[in-house]
Amino acid sequence: MEGSRWGRSARLVALVQRLLDHPGRLFSLQELGEETGAAKSTLSEDMDVVEEVLEAEGRGRLERLPGAAGGVRYRPHLSPARMAEALAALTRLVGDPARIVPGGFVYLTDLVFSPEWGAVIGSVFATEFAGRGVEAVVTVETRGIPIGLMTARALGVPLVTVRRNVRLPEGPTLGVDYVSDTTKRVETMTLPRRALADGTAVLVIDDFTKGGGTLRGVVSLMAECRANVLGMGVFMETEVPVAKAVEGVFSLLRLGKVDEEAGTIEVYPSPSVLRLERAEPRGV
Amino acid sequence: MEGSRWGRSARLVALVQRLLDHPGRLFSLQELGEETGAAKSTLSEDMDVVEEVLEAEGRGRLERLPGAAGGVRYRPHLSPARMAEALAALTRLVGDPARIVPGGFVYLTDLVFSPEWGAVIGSVFATEFAGRGVEAVVTVETRGIPIGLMTARALGVPLVTVRRNVRLPEGPTLGVDYVSDTTKRVETMTLPRRALADGTAVLVIDDFTKGGGTLRGVVSLMAECRANVLGMGVFMETEVPVAKAVEGVFSLLRLGKVDEEAGTIEVYPSPSVLRLERAEPRGV
Repeated sequence: MEGSRWGRSARLVALVQRLLDHPGRLFSLQELGEETGAAKSTLSEDMDVVEEVLEAEGRGRLERLPGAAGGVRYRPHLSPARMAEALAALTRLVGDPARIVPGGFVYLTDLVFSPEWGAVIGSVFATEFAGRGVEAVVTVETRGIPIGLMTARALGVPLVTVRRNVRLPEGPTLGVDYVSDTTKRVETMTLPRRALADGTAVLVIDDFTKGGGTLRGVVSLMAECRANVLGMGVFMETEVPVAKAVEGVFSLLRLGKVDEEAGTIEVYPSPSVLRLERAEPRGV
Repeated sequence: MEGSRWGRSARLVALVQRLLDHPGRLFSLQELGEETGAAKSTLSEDMDVVEEVLEAEGRGRLERLPGAAGGVRYRPHLSPARMAEALAALTRLVGDPARIVPGGFVYLTDLVFSPEWGAVIGSVFATEFAGRGVEAVVTVETRGIPIGLMTARALGVPLVTVRRNVRLPEGPTLGVDYVSDTTKRVETMTLPRRALADGTAVLVIDDFTKGGGTLRGVVSLMAECRANVLGMGVFMETEVPVAKAVEGVFSLLRLGKVDEEAGTIEVYPSPSVLRLERAEPRGV
């Protein structure tokens, strides 16, 4: 690329592509200058424009770190208005009676495996857990993986997946037993010993919780790994039981009664996410 | 947003964010005009800039569809030079002797669950399978999911995950038996009946194949679902056995001998991907 030939418009396109393709990655102005052929003062003016537009759009933010070790970084981050839009859309989607599965369950598979909705859900978690120093996202196979991946992508950190069924050798592992909410049986979850370094600050993400048994299992496993759990987030939790096996779980949606005969699903945004939607000080 | 107040620079930032946040989604010029307050002719000039820069950068392309039903669409797409860079980096990463696991296996877990590398691998698959009319990506739990998700994201289509261990009711399912390469036993893979509509054109993506038994299982299951398999892609295949249970699998890397005592891993870009790297007619 011969960046120096480019005018401001072309340079902005190139800069925005770099930033958005790598959420959470810090780009130094020197690096960006070498790649686009622009002076630091010029780039600084470019970043004023990028920052202003991103802020007004309400889907992400530009972080600008001054000094020799500084630079710029893009972070997905929803404004209160975008947050309200996202929650309204997800609530509508989950509440569709066509999702009722015999036995009073709700079919969520298409939603939790969707790249588009995964990105939205990941942005909600990234907004809630911004600025807390998350170093890795931890999830549990299978249905937690896509949401966990998109959250890790939004935060610019790796994803670590706790296994319940390991098929390939991964070297020495750490394991804990837990009681599954679903099967009511004692099961084992494991992680390769090399997956997490001692003291890693982690965010635990899963798609769904009822009693919190799986999350409690993950918390125990994190203690074995000497990881530091900064927070827990799930896409949807059930209204009952009110007392979960773990406390302080942030959820997007809360599931009430699923009435197979009437064909109705009670679902609404969680109090935890509404707090976020209202309290946000910046953005539109 | 009061788009009409914005100059060209600000508008380009807003347009690029929209396009890159939704790979594969078609935006009509009318829709973009309403959101940015710009006339169609102005937007058309903006798109000339976006197209030129993306082409020069070699990581994605702008598709422009003329007419009333037309618009613009962003697609991740690697130029031959970016493809070569990506394959060199992945080969180096996989060939690191620290990845050898007792038993002569290669630890790939961190890599296949990485959002950053997942995006790179997804871009390679999106480049290979561009323009073939893929309507859904199909993968197999567990380790295929992150790569499958990032490929689906790059192609702008849903991800459908074949299950080997279902824990939650998902309604009626279709299932096939297959012989697992890993366990050498007959196992069952299933898919909820509602996951794929009849006649859907699918791309099958997995992280790893040795004998091709799992892929053959997925192909049988796709036949049961009346889906049309357009292609198959894996991140890495083994050199032996040369004859796999399925033919025509596109792979990024090929794994040769893993020598535990000498501490060496033989790995190299696959002939299939090298063909792609060389034959690409456009871009730098």
